Amino acid sequence: MSVVKPRVMQGVMELLPRQQIAFQGVFDTIRRGFERFGYAPIETPAVELTSVLLTKTGGETEKQVYFVQSTGARDQGKDPDLALRFDLTVPLARYVAKNEANLTFPFRRYQMQRSYRGERPQRGRYREFYQCDIDVIGKESLDPRYDAEVPAVMIGIFEELEIGDFTVQLNNRKVLLGLLESVGIDDEARPRVLREVDKIDKRGREYLAETLAGDDFVLPSATIDKVLAFLAIDGSAREVVDALSQQGIDNETFNEGRTQLEAVIGSLEALQVNPSRYRVNVAIARGLDYYTGTVYETFLDDHKDLGSICSGGRYENLASNYTKSKLPGVGMSIGLTRLFYLLQELDLVDSTASAADVLVTQQDPELYAEYLALATELRAAGLRTESVVEPWKFKKQMKYANATGVPFVVIVGASEHDANQVTLKDMVGGDQVTVARSELIPEIERRRVAAQNRDDA
Amino acid sequence: MSVVKPRVMQGVMELLPRQQIAFQGVFDTIRRGFERFGYAPIETPAVELTSVLLTKTGGETEKQVYFVQSTGARDQGKDPDLALRFDLTVPLARYVAKNEANLTFPFRRYQMQRSYRGERPQRGRYREFYQCDIDVIGKESLDPRYDAEVPAVMIGIFEELEIGDFTVQLNNRKVLLGLLESVGIDDEARPRVLREVDKIDKRGREYLAETLAGDDFVLPSATIDKVLAFLAIDGSAREVVDALSQQGIDNETFNEGRTQLEAVIGSLEALQVNPSRYRVNVAIARGLDYYTGTVYETFLDDHKDLGSICSGGRYENLASNYTKSKLPGVGMSIGLTRLFYLLQELDLVDSTASAADVLVTQQDPELYAEYLALATELRAAGLRTESVVEPWKFKKQMKYANATGVPFVVIVGASEHDANQVTLKDMVGGDQVTVARSELIPEIERRRVAAQNRDDA
Repeated sequence: MSVVKPRVMQGVMELLPRQQIAFQGVFDTIRRGFERFGYAPIETPAVELTSVLLTKTGGETEKQVYFVQSTGARDQGKDPDLALRFDLTVPLARYVAKNEANLTFPFRRYQMQRSYRGERPQRGRYREFYQCDIDVIGKESLDPRYDAEVPAVMIGIFEELEIGDFTVQLNNRKVLLGLLESVGIDDEARPRVLREVDKIDKRGREYLAETLAGDDFVLPSATIDKVLAFLAIDGSAREVVDALSQQGIDNETFNEGRTQLEAVIGSLEALQVNPSRYRVNVAIARGLDYYTGTVYETFLDDHKDLGSICSGGRYENLASNYTKSKLPGVGMSIGLTRLFYLLQELDLVDSTASAADVLVTQQDPELYAEYLALATELRAAGLRTESVVEPWKFKKQMKYANATGVPFVVIVGASEHDANQVTLKDMVGGDQVTVARSELIPEIERRRVAAQNRDDA
Repeated sequence: MSVVKPRVMQGVMELLPRQQIAFQGVFDTIRRGFERFGYAPIETPAVELTSVLLTKTGGETEKQVYFVQSTGARDQGKDPDLALRFDLTVPLARYVAKNEANLTFPFRRYQMQRSYRGERPQRGRYREFYQCDIDVIGKESLDPRYDAEVPAVMIGIFEELEIGDFTVQLNNRKVLLGLLESVGIDDEARPRVLREVDKIDKRGREYLAETLAGDDFVLPSATIDKVLAFLAIDGSAREVVDALSQQGIDNETFNEGRTQLEAVIGSLEALQVNPSRYRVNVAIARGLDYYTGTVYETFLDDHKDLGSICSGGRYENLASNYTKSKLPGVGMSIGLTRLFYLLQELDLVDSTASAADVLVTQQDPELYAEYLALATELRAAGLRTESVVEPWKFKKQMKYANATGVPFVVIVGASEHDANQVTLKDMVGGDQVTVARSELIPEIERRRVAAQNRDDA
């Protein structure tokens, strides 16, 4: 019989079991972080109607859409009316509009699902990727102080993930727009200037000055100097917010942005978020004009070159394509598949995790029923327990234990059985002890606690 | 601006947040049940290469396949080379074959992901549906006693799900094939007879007798009587297994099946699985000839008409399409989306779950920072805590609490604040108490434990 090569499509992440356990650990930590703040889960279908998904025609995104078609529809030569979602924002908008009457606003939701984009394959870019999004959606209005809650959730998660030092950079687009207004840049040019300003951290001040002086903008050098002077504002989040009121800028947009930023920083302080985890970066604006107020980016302090690992912002109206209701919101998103890839590259993923806590071996085939009963007891005590089912040589059993990474191995030979004892082999510590059978679970627990304390130290 | 109606495709399950929380509860219980036995998670891409996915051409399944095509490939007029998986078995086979050298056998894996089939939409049938599969895959051989572990995992899960009485029915196809051999039915006809026998619980004995006597089989009535007499064997699993050796049937296939069944029942007993949760039904064979030994079906005792909620069996060779290695396995699968639908219909889903444990309200806008600090404290104590961010009227805050179903509401007015006290409103119990602020967390914990004990009673 001929054999087909078992391949997967390009650009997907498929993990070996122990990597998958590590991935699951990161996933669970993120989920727990979302739930800690009372965010509710939603899931939407991976497949959406094209008429609903692709309301804005054209654009980069549409070029990357995967269309879906059932066999029947293909046979009839129809155009595909289904497509895979390319992010979780459009499905959220569709979901909220669809269920508006049955949701309680402000609606705090989290969503951790995969999205699909036909991107050119390259390292760290995936065609199928998990996104972990939180958003708070208001009806008609949404207090700016929510803009502090969202990064507080994310900071809690990244602290728990132990991925080294990181910083959430935040800003308010209105502050920047107000600055541009104050230096006399006209309404139409402001969003374009913003996009250039947003790139200053990558390209440098000089490049920005040249661009703004160049043909596309032709700004006078005095204006450019004022913009650059403003963009040099630095310090702690509190210091930057205070400095903003010293700039002699006084227009509605600027003042609104400054007040909102101040409310956000105040709330972050009240939430007792470690101030070294966030700063105000007055240059960031995010590429998308979709964002209207607060914007966020998150960087690993030692690996800024990797780009933002968690971004988002405040938007005016989530679902104008699907409802006439005004639904302002604020959200952030972790691209988990890419993040996991980066953490693996940086060796920041705990790869010691195993699927089981305990392996019950088989010394004497006559005692097999005994081994199963013991495994049942361990499971009832909350220990994930695997049994050796085949009557292997002991060496093979230990090889299996090593390969799966199980931290504890239980051995009961005929002599232990007669003495009502068990031997516990600590695969991490390396030692083994023989204890009364009734002492087995407490002994494992003691060692687990000790190992946990070692890890935390 | 014109608005698009926010619809989803037919045949998908999309839940409101509180239903989704209930769904998540079921999902988590299943996952915990898998992990308790040391099964390792894997995830595979939803999209597979058609050349790999559709190795067997034709058949019902292929007619239901959803093809996937990127915009670029469509523009070039190519045939789709991608498709959505229609189950988790083919991806498992592909995964194991692909990663054979890096897996430890026997490989115990669980997988909880969505699959896609273009089925005719009808109640309880979904085009996108979660499957929750476990399988143990051996290399070259796999001890029959694994066939006890797999239903033991599932029984533990269904007990924890509290879905009422249920029974895993098990059998061994070899027992049936051996019976058919012993009554002189020829080799070629046996699988076809098996498919008819398998339907006896639905159609009745008389229908089976008529079918076997009819044109398709033309069996003599003495043969049919013997088959029917055999199919009448009933009793506890142990009794049925014992009865099998009293049938005077003695051929290799029958003896192998009987010995395997006996080993399975023996292991289930040793695992201390409640014997009322399983029985041997000598009539079941499963439709698929893919299965070669043990087979399983699971029924809700009070709703047998709903069909099996968890099925599976033993197979000879998982991945013959992808590798020359012989990979025997045994597995069972829960169709979670359909199960959740059924549990909802039967009112067996706990719908009281909410996203948060505690809501910190806002009595006095001046104390907002205080409220945020209190919420941070509650979160640090492991309580999922939501804050009221907008300065709403109190009545609106209580309406929000009721709508989200949060069980505890914390109220701190100026007077409580001055006295260093807080008021805790128990939304389930209905009462409220004012306690010292330091007593808040212990008070909530006490009430949570009491509520848990009430639920368990």
